[in-house]
Amino acid sequence: MAAKVYAVGIGPGSLDLLTPQAEKVLRMCTAVAGYQLYLDQIAPLIEGKKIIPGGMRQEVERCTRALEAALAGETVAVVSSGDAGVYGMAGLLMELTQEERFSGIEIEVVPGITAALSCAALAGAPLMNDFAVLSLSELMTPEAVIRRRLEAIAQLDLPVALYNPKSRRRHVLLEYAVEVFRKYGGDQLPGALVRDAWREGQKIQFFTLDQFPFDEVQMTTLVLIGNSQTRIANGRMFCLRGYREKYGVGE
Amino acid sequence: MAAKVYAVGIGPGSLDLLTPQAEKVLRMCTAVAGYQLYLDQIAPLIEGKKIIPGGMRQEVERCTRALEAALAGETVAVVSSGDAGVYGMAGLLMELTQEERFSGIEIEVVPGITAALSCAALAGAPLMNDFAVLSLSELMTPEAVIRRRLEAIAQLDLPVALYNPKSRRRHVLLEYAVEVFRKYGGDQLPGALVRDAWREGQKIQFFTLDQFPFDEVQMTTLVLIGNSQTRIANGRMFCLRGYREKYGVGE
Repeated sequence: MAAKVYAVGIGPGSLDLLTPQAEKVLRMCTAVAGYQLYLDQIAPLIEGKKIIPGGMRQEVERCTRALEAALAGETVAVVSSGDAGVYGMAGLLMELTQEERFSGIEIEVVPGITAALSCAALAGAPLMNDFAVLSLSELMTPEAVIRRRLEAIAQLDLPVALYNPKSRRRHVLLEYAVEVFRKYGGDQLPGALVRDAWREGQKIQFFTLDQFPFDEVQMTTLVLIGNSQTRIANGRMFCLRGYREKYGVGE
Repeated sequence: MAAKVYAVGIGPGSLDLLTPQAEKVLRMCTAVAGYQLYLDQIAPLIEGKKIIPGGMRQEVERCTRALEAALAGETVAVVSSGDAGVYGMAGLLMELTQEERFSGIEIEVVPGITAALSCAALAGAPLMNDFAVLSLSELMTPEAVIRRRLEAIAQLDLPVALYNPKSRRRHVLLEYAVEVFRKYGGDQLPGALVRDAWREGQKIQFFTLDQFPFDEVQMTTLVLIGNSQTRIANGRMFCLRGYREKYGVGE
């Protein structure tokens, strides 16, 4: 049988939002690789298994070790928060299998609830129709590209989920994001911050862009910005679907 | 206690990708509203419950009946495939609670694995970094807006997941999508069709845009189009993350 590595998305952190498929794979595998915070969140499922740890920015090393462990006969799960295929480890694992020594290893992706979805659910339904997912981290994408994407998305009247809105050193791209969405969508465009979604310390805040609460944004915050069809009512942020205009009741 | 309606995302159809939280809510509720195909997919969880059925394009009626049932004392789940907050029923339910008679009803969203994620996992990791989610159905969004979004997204070098690529009557928007992505991304831009993901009849096909398999697109197909960083190798479509260029191995 070919060696196999599973790229597993564990969702936002609550085991209630980890899929049965992810649970099966985690229970079945013999070795688990991942950032310690994520391993803690799935601790009950991985007791006694070999751990391949690794900190932030050690992703290549961690994935390389996971692939080596698979060659040595382990069944390996590499865990990512949210979905392994969205700012997670799935792509990097596939990239690494282009190396000759890893070329026989199959990478299977187990999807998970990415932050855009888990946070949107807590805020209401802000990503109801078309939307974009962007990261404000310039570690992987050049800053100029991020700026160009932000401006174009704002101009398109597309709601957006912003990952990695801020780090300790960095906040200018978040300021730029708010600036361009105000420019094209207006001061009253609605938004939400969702922090530590489905975990201890969860916090949801709504606002209009002229009152953007910059000081409330943490590293574990997801920023949601609406469009011209977005409303906030009864403590829920949602995007109009247009059904009523199109079909009316009872058609 | 306030009346409550749950907007539940059931994922792509396999119970293995329905979250434990969704399962709990479905088992706990007394009435379930949804399109019959989705109710069939969760049949083991809803035996004996009151069913509020409704066909395609009867969304307003179905959601209205669900809200009325909640007022009458039922605990109601309205199910959507994928995520209830992405082209699902969550937003419409919130919209309807703006009516006076429904204003006391709380809408809770239980997130699910939307098709972009479930299909991406089967194809590889094509939505690894920033991406957009667009629907080619002009039922809710004017055709001119869809065209403008497609062209802008293609120009931004953003990978895209295209929902509702085609109906019985309609295929011009899909042709337009392929045309603009070829224009900005080139003939060799990679893509994938994922049909009936995680269900019987599942089929995954890779191609470059100059060979786009129009005849293979069905109503249950999701179209994934990559960007300049997308590769297809070892039967997997994935987006380069850039880690190796930035950090090298072992930093």
